[in-house]
Amino acid sequence: MALTTVDVRASLNVLGAILRWLAVPLVIPTVVAVIYRESPLPYLVAIAIALGVGTALTRLPRDRIADREAFLTVSLSWLTIAVVGAIPLYIEGTGVFASPVNALFEGMSGITTTGATVIRDFDAHSQALLMWRQVLQWLGGLGVLLLATAVLSRLSVAGAQLMETETRTENVTKLTPGIEETARILGKLYLGLTAGAAAILYALGVGGLAPEMTLFDAIAHAFTSIATAGFSPRAESVGAFSPAVQWAVTLFMIVGATNFVLLYALVRGETDRLRDSEEFRFYLGVLAAGSLLVTGLLVVDQGAIGGVGASIRHAVFQTAAIVTTTGYASTDFNTWSAGAKNLLFAMMFIGGMAGSTTCSVKTLRWLIVTKSFWRDLNVSAHRQSVRPVRLGSEAVSEDTVRDVYAYTLVALVFFVFGTLLLVVDGEVSGVPITEFEALSAAASMFFNIGPAFGRAGPYGTYEGFARSSKVMMVLLMWIGRIEIVPVMVLLTPTFWKR
Amino acid sequence: MALTTVDVRASLNVLGAILRWLAVPLVIPTVVAVIYRESPLPYLVAIAIALGVGTALTRLPRDRIADREAFLTVSLSWLTIAVVGAIPLYIEGTGVFASPVNALFEGMSGITTTGATVIRDFDAHSQALLMWRQVLQWLGGLGVLLLATAVLSRLSVAGAQLMETETRTENVTKLTPGIEETARILGKLYLGLTAGAAAILYALGVGGLAPEMTLFDAIAHAFTSIATAGFSPRAESVGAFSPAVQWAVTLFMIVGATNFVLLYALVRGETDRLRDSEEFRFYLGVLAAGSLLVTGLLVVDQGAIGGVGASIRHAVFQTAAIVTTTGYASTDFNTWSAGAKNLLFAMMFIGGMAGSTTCSVKTLRWLIVTKSFWRDLNVSAHRQSVRPVRLGSEAVSEDTVRDVYAYTLVALVFFVFGTLLLVVDGEVSGVPITEFEALSAAASMFFNIGPAFGRAGPYGTYEGFARSSKVMMVLLMWIGRIEIVPVMVLLTPTFWKR
Ligand SMILES: [K+]
Ligand SMILES: [K+]
Repeated sequence: MALTTVDVRASLNVLGAILRWLAVPLVIPTVVAVIYRESPLPYLVAIAIALGVGTALTRLPRDRIADREAFLTVSLSWLTIAVVGAIPLYIEGTGVFASPVNALFEGMSGITTTGATVIRDFDAHSQALLMWRQVLQWLGGLGVLLLATAVLSRLSVAGAQLMETETRTENVTKLTPGIEETARILGKLYLGLTAGAAAILYALGVGGLAPEMTLFDAIAHAFTSIATAGFSPRAESVGAFSPAVQWAVTLFMIVGATNFVLLYALVRGETDRLRDSEEFRFYLGVLAAGSLLVTGLLVVDQGAIGGVGASIRHAVFQTAAIVTTTGYASTDFNTWSAGAKNLLFAMMFIGGMAGSTTCSVKTLRWLIVTKSFWRDLNVSAHRQSVRPVRLGSEAVSEDTVRDVYAYTLVALVFFVFGTLLLVVDGEVSGVPITEFEALSAAASMFFNIGPAFGRAGPYGTYEGFARSSKVMMVLLMWIGRIEIVPVMVLLTPTFWKR
Repeated sequence: MALTTVDVRASLNVLGAILRWLAVPLVIPTVVAVIYRESPLPYLVAIAIALGVGTALTRLPRDRIADREAFLTVSLSWLTIAVVGAIPLYIEGTGVFASPVNALFEGMSGITTTGATVIRDFDAHSQALLMWRQVLQWLGGLGVLLLATAVLSRLSVAGAQLMETETRTENVTKLTPGIEETARILGKLYLGLTAGAAAILYALGVGGLAPEMTLFDAIAHAFTSIATAGFSPRAESVGAFSPAVQWAVTLFMIVGATNFVLLYALVRGETDRLRDSEEFRFYLGVLAAGSLLVTGLLVVDQGAIGGVGASIRHAVFQTAAIVTTTGYASTDFNTWSAGAKNLLFAMMFIGGMAGSTTCSVKTLRWLIVTKSFWRDLNVSAHRQSVRPVRLGSEAVSEDTVRDVYAYTLVALVFFVFGTLLLVVDGEVSGVPITEFEALSAAASMFFNIGPAFGRAGPYGTYEGFARSSKVMMVLLMWIGRIEIVPVMVLLTPTFWKR
């Protein structure tokens, strides 16, 4: 395998095929533009570019797709779709999107399912543009789902071996354990869940439980709930809707960050697989503990929110929004007490289940870290008793444990460097940023959450940061979303050698 | 080894011997009290307690000292000396020390070489008390030096196997590689360096380069420089003295956080060992890069400090103070820009070299993490090429790599939980704490730096935090200083079993 150089042309060939497919979802904002009597031109241009460049690239020979080609394709795909996704925003050029950096930021935030926005005034933009942001995130969710279950698990890095155990294709279907089959099955499930979410949201509106809910809103939020993505066409995010909608969306976010292989088993009637999953119980435990603690802090400090009922709802919603890495807001949690904010900040580092649309570190890794540290402590006391870390009935190899530790630690180091880049750049650019703003923005970017604290809070905007800072944020979102290694490996000299 | 229960009485026996030794350094504040015509009573009481309790404990049988007994002895020692060290402060009862929690905080901050203080008004306290704080830190530095080189390296945990390679006793003397011999040799070196530092500081005063420097000041700061500890009898810390003193102290801090085994080799004329140490070059690189970056930020944002010369001096000083975990201040860096503050905050997580008096994660671990991640990236591209991580000429075992990752990650997790405890407790206690205050205070406590940002800044005080928060901080300092495992292992059921 190491006897040839990386096949760049083959990687570009696959990228071309992906780009051509991008024309299909671009039809949605085109149709929205026609319906709302807006100009469909920006989306037609993007379709032309996707088809043109995509077709040109597919002309390249596709000799070999092995590990390195997969890394290169993955890295290029997210970057390229961010750019193509940003083109219609820049062509419309309304409000903040007159700046290409702002358009690129929004495009990368879309495809990485980050959900951070530079928009200042939601009314300044077309319905087509607002819907395209949602569609882009839905695509990003699908992409990462396929990446996690079908691609990354085959590249033996960063503890992904473990994901393979947890999500392996044989578990989806004993018949055809190929990448295409996994993609087809989990893609259908993803589509089904999205359709279900849209139907429920619209039904809440029709049923009188959500007077503000239009069909547009129902579809738009369904696109970004199951994808744990977080864009909203509303300035107030999910806070624009009734408590019933907020509870429903809480459920959707939790489902979106659940292992899709286990969800598929559930759909097929194998309820025990989800129920017996140690990671699922750990994930629910994290959500419950977080909700309880945030509720407690909101009740202690009644300044922000009136009433215990509202406190519980907002606490559960925001805990789910942060842990699942969706990043929606049911209220402006930027005005909460320091305790509640710090807790939400800490929860940014957790993430939902492996094999889902979630971002951040993921509960599977934290579960292994917790179990392994507990094992180490026990072994310390009795030096000769060696015990493996167990997940369910299987022993986790020590190499996997090491890789999980490595990934988690390196992710934290990246977050720290991201923070430093933002503060240094803010200072050099003359756009001061406070300590907590920088910390939370770096975490929110790198772990693809969306909102931060301070000016980039849930009801704020990233527009005010220095242009160079926004470019750095684009890089952070990109590297974080595809789990660091695919991008970083491109920087090693050996990658390009025989 | 696992066939018997832990021998608590043997552990208490060793603790008793350590306690009795504590009577010796307590003579210093007693003498200071006599010289300054203050009451020596608080120190005589402490001497009586140390001798009395210590002697009583040494009556217990000392049947076996194995791994578990070592963990228990280490944990109990730091806790007990913090309490006994606090007794004279509480007996004097001047100012903030009327509160036992404040006295305990200062005692733990002393013995753990943290250097965080609750003092509000330095003039309110006796010279004996101010000197006792310094002596306590010097003892803490000695204790951790012996712990790192002679004790922890023999307990195969948290990557300490590696410390063994780097600091093993055979390297000190080929003749008697026993714990006592290591302790004797490194203890002498530590004493010699302290005496040298005191002489240089006093000489600067006599030579007219430091008009403010008294003999008292020279000795007091020598005690807490080589120990990378950070207490000062002056409210302005090292900022009370001339630039010449600040440069000298910078050097002392850097020496104190250098591997003492390599320093010993240097003293014996084997200059190549220090020069060839990869970790030493990494450590100097970190110091240089940090100094350069902080200088840059101070020059960009001239608000805090006038002049490039002063900027360089304060940047180098504060970088060294934070990286070596000493925590001294040459100026109130709390007033610096967000960028500079965030950079100092990030540097709290680094630490100096293994086998020194430093705290935090340490450069040896970060070097392994960096090398290992780079190795992993290179291996990712070429799946079958397995390469060991190398340190100098030796290959580091994969188990050690895993343990280093584990320790570093778990330390970060503890820091996060510490932050959450502080914010939640602050809120419940009605003593609000800002996000960055909580983050920096937790890091400063757990990594034993000393100052934080906000109210607990270098010229501030920890006195204003809630009493319960201060108790939590005492626990953080304790657990962090002895590298987590000795305390945490006590919480495992297997520790207490056969
Ligand atoms: K998100
Ligand atoms: K310190």
